[in-house]
Amino acid sequence: MTPPPPSERIRLVTSVLEANDRIAARTREACTAAGVLLVDVLGGPGAGKTALLEATLPRLGARAAVIAGDLETSRDAERLAACGVPVVQITTNSFGGACHLDAGMVAQALDQVPLTAIDVLFVENVGNLVCPAEFDIGQHARVVVLSVAEGEDKPLKYPLAFRRADAAVVAKIDLLPHLEFDLARLRESLHAVHPSLPCFELSVRSGAGLEAWLLWIAAQRRHRPTP
Amino acid sequence: MTPPPPSERIRLVTSVLEANDRIAARTREACTAAGVLLVDVLGGPGAGKTALLEATLPRLGARAAVIAGDLETSRDAERLAACGVPVVQITTNSFGGACHLDAGMVAQALDQVPLTAIDVLFVENVGNLVCPAEFDIGQHARVVVLSVAEGEDKPLKYPLAFRRADAAVVAKIDLLPHLEFDLARLRESLHAVHPSLPCFELSVRSGAGLEAWLLWIAAQRRHRPTP
Repeated sequence: MTPPPPSERIRLVTSVLEANDRIAARTREACTAAGVLLVDVLGGPGAGKTALLEATLPRLGARAAVIAGDLETSRDAERLAACGVPVVQITTNSFGGACHLDAGMVAQALDQVPLTAIDVLFVENVGNLVCPAEFDIGQHARVVVLSVAEGEDKPLKYPLAFRRADAAVVAKIDLLPHLEFDLARLRESLHAVHPSLPCFELSVRSGAGLEAWLLWIAAQRRHRPTP
Repeated sequence: MTPPPPSERIRLVTSVLEANDRIAARTREACTAAGVLLVDVLGGPGAGKTALLEATLPRLGARAAVIAGDLETSRDAERLAACGVPVVQITTNSFGGACHLDAGMVAQALDQVPLTAIDVLFVENVGNLVCPAEFDIGQHARVVVLSVAEGEDKPLKYPLAFRRADAAVVAKIDLLPHLEFDLARLRESLHAVHPSLPCFELSVRSGAGLEAWLLWIAAQRRHRPTP
């Protein structure tokens, strides 16, 4: 069997994305109606997404839950459940090893989230700086997490993730003294790709910078979801 | 337009992968016939793929070239060209923002590689620990690069990349004193996913561990490609 011609493939991709966006819109409406802020957390493998949530949940001053996406294993979900919040796991290998969460997977997980009992729902996406950026999952805000161990040029090399983000977290800044990492160059890269992007440089380990990040979440809660 | 039914999607994916594998087989044959070892280098964003190649190329004791894949920018290609080897850039955004290299892209780039003048061809894949693992690009050997800043559980969470690798490089070990990173736990994770996988723990910055890695490449050259 030969592959379908390019026009067929483009139609297929378009229709899949349209279906995704319809489901995402419903998820966003459901969260808005319940007064819940839905935050999608994106980043490459080991950027520090789970650690950021572990540091955020106890300091949030609001009731939270997490939907955690992983190819395999429930390690992130277990770490987050230890914070005492409801956690729903999506293992994308049961969806054919998907490299991202899509709106359908999140909508399915949403059925198990006690929406009326929470204020903020975090979705920890699959560790991947490329594919998740293309899929609206119904979030009100998207945060892209980058570790300083990854290098200063990542926003230029993975522009979509940064362009479609509402905030960037530059994690693991406690490692800066041990790296040849130029924070000024990273800020330039971020500015080049998304000039107005709020950026939080922080260390979960030392606690530096967490306060500003928590204030940003609080501001999102105040300003975003009104039905 | 509604999305095609699941059976149609599965047929489409299957046929795309079959077409990929046919092209990959031709690439592998062409390299084998020219006595060139083709090594695919995989890893998440900032794992240290480019730095590994920068350290490897001058110490290789063989003529090399690189095909460098990136979503956008030619930064990696420029860094590698500074090593004095032929570099061909694939910018996947010209292929619709692809999150991986496929066999067709590599075959197209191969036309610009002076195969008769080299011994080893490295392909630096797009920074992504998920999608590139699924695509044979015609390599003789695949190396997955992981930085110690990423955490010990990555092989369990991204198993396909490690299962389909012929070697793992654990990079940036100079950072170990500054991290809560348990090398024994990483070794257990690697062993659980791929028991016989050769693993090179190294630091490009200090030079520690490079020798063993270079010997492995030399052994691949001796044993792999005979037409």
